[in-house]
Amino acid sequence: MQDHLQRALSQLAAESIEVTAAGRTDTGVHASAQVAHFDTNASRDANAWVRGTNSNLHEGARVLWAREVPADFHARYSALSRTYRYLLLDDAVAPAILRHRVGWYHKPLDVAAMSLAAAALVGERDFSSFRDAQCQAKSPVRDLKEARVERRGTLVVFTFRANAFLHHMIRNVVGSLVYVGAGKHAPGWIGELLAMRDRREAAPTFAAAGLYLAGVEYDPAFGLPAFRDQPLISLP
Amino acid sequence: MQDHLQRALSQLAAESIEVTAAGRTDTGVHASAQVAHFDTNASRDANAWVRGTNSNLHEGARVLWAREVPADFHARYSALSRTYRYLLLDDAVAPAILRHRVGWYHKPLDVAAMSLAAAALVGERDFSSFRDAQCQAKSPVRDLKEARVERRGTLVVFTFRANAFLHHMIRNVVGSLVYVGAGKHAPGWIGELLAMRDRREAAPTFAAAGLYLAGVEYDPAFGLPAFRDQPLISLP
Repeated sequence: MQDHLQRALSQLAAESIEVTAAGRTDTGVHASAQVAHFDTNASRDANAWVRGTNSNLHEGARVLWAREVPADFHARYSALSRTYRYLLLDDAVAPAILRHRVGWYHKPLDVAAMSLAAAALVGERDFSSFRDAQCQAKSPVRDLKEARVERRGTLVVFTFRANAFLHHMIRNVVGSLVYVGAGKHAPGWIGELLAMRDRREAAPTFAAAGLYLAGVEYDPAFGLPAFRDQPLISLP
Repeated sequence: MQDHLQRALSQLAAESIEVTAAGRTDTGVHASAQVAHFDTNASRDANAWVRGTNSNLHEGARVLWAREVPADFHARYSALSRTYRYLLLDDAVAPAILRHRVGWYHKPLDVAAMSLAAAALVGERDFSSFRDAQCQAKSPVRDLKEARVERRGTLVVFTFRANAFLHHMIRNVVGSLVYVGAGKHAPGWIGELLAMRDRREAAPTFAAAGLYLAGVEYDPAFGLPAFRDQPLISLP
């Protein structure tokens, strides 16, 4: 996706453009609110950057806005927090129309238990138990500011906000929270997993299909547009 | 889709099965609550019909439930009403993650005006102005029991319930309501279109991508499961 965006921008700018994105999104994860910056000698107004780039992108990707930013802005390092959402269809039958857009669990989940369990994750914690073996981060400690689980009809919606996340951290957390929701473990198990600092103790990584990079927070002084939720993941 | 379902059922039943569906859905329209009946000599419990058929279907189609019905039940002729929903993304930029799942209009729509205009459609009316040239129905009169337009964030959600619909009727109505929402015509234009009984006066047919067959109503005596909304189109 990064390559694809770079080609579309380079074509518009008539020079080679490299972009730096706020957060990585694995294959199958939806970058619904990705933020990226780039340097260019080309001069276009914001609207032209949006429309021109979109006309060069395939239909699976769209630029929502563009702004000129101060030289000290960095999409990755200036980010104060990232918000990810995970959409899980909790239904006996797998999704058809929403295939590749939501995860799926086939038995009724106890969302109250999952919500209680998720609360144990909030704070500055060692997330080694939810860290992929390939994770390149120097430290397994992350500051999780928010961890919510809510039911919206047949959808279970997870919201996680942190300064940053480890590789596969959210999909690993979702997997273990689903074990709690399915009654395989009590809510207190999540806190025990944190204390064990052992990836082998937690549940398998959940499917990429339900994961959305749903927002990136910056200092309001940068004057960037407020984040707008995707229709599919909007909550009241 | 009908062929595909017939093959999946026939494979499970080990005999040739033909299905009759409640409503037609054109290419690109989502049959999220289609109901179909069939006759068979094969004996399976309801759960086996659901799971067995789903294991034979491609991932774009799923059977949600199955029930044995009295011999006088007919998916099409027993239906008391059909409910269709149309999801329209009202945003400057086209949908990426929800491409092929929603229609799109690029300018802000006046939903209050559209809602007012839609009210003129309710009742037993001649829908010739919204009828496709290829429509094979004997009469252009349909009994529209409900026509609602509501905003849900960037989505505009249309709900139409009628005894039955003419070919392309909803997509044609949506196109003309969008003209009203965009300020090209006053809300009263929809009533004028009805009176003109001339397809050439109304707006072009809107895209299939946003249309969902969202419910089929039968006499409760048949004991069929209550309709459940798709997550994407659930309203509070």
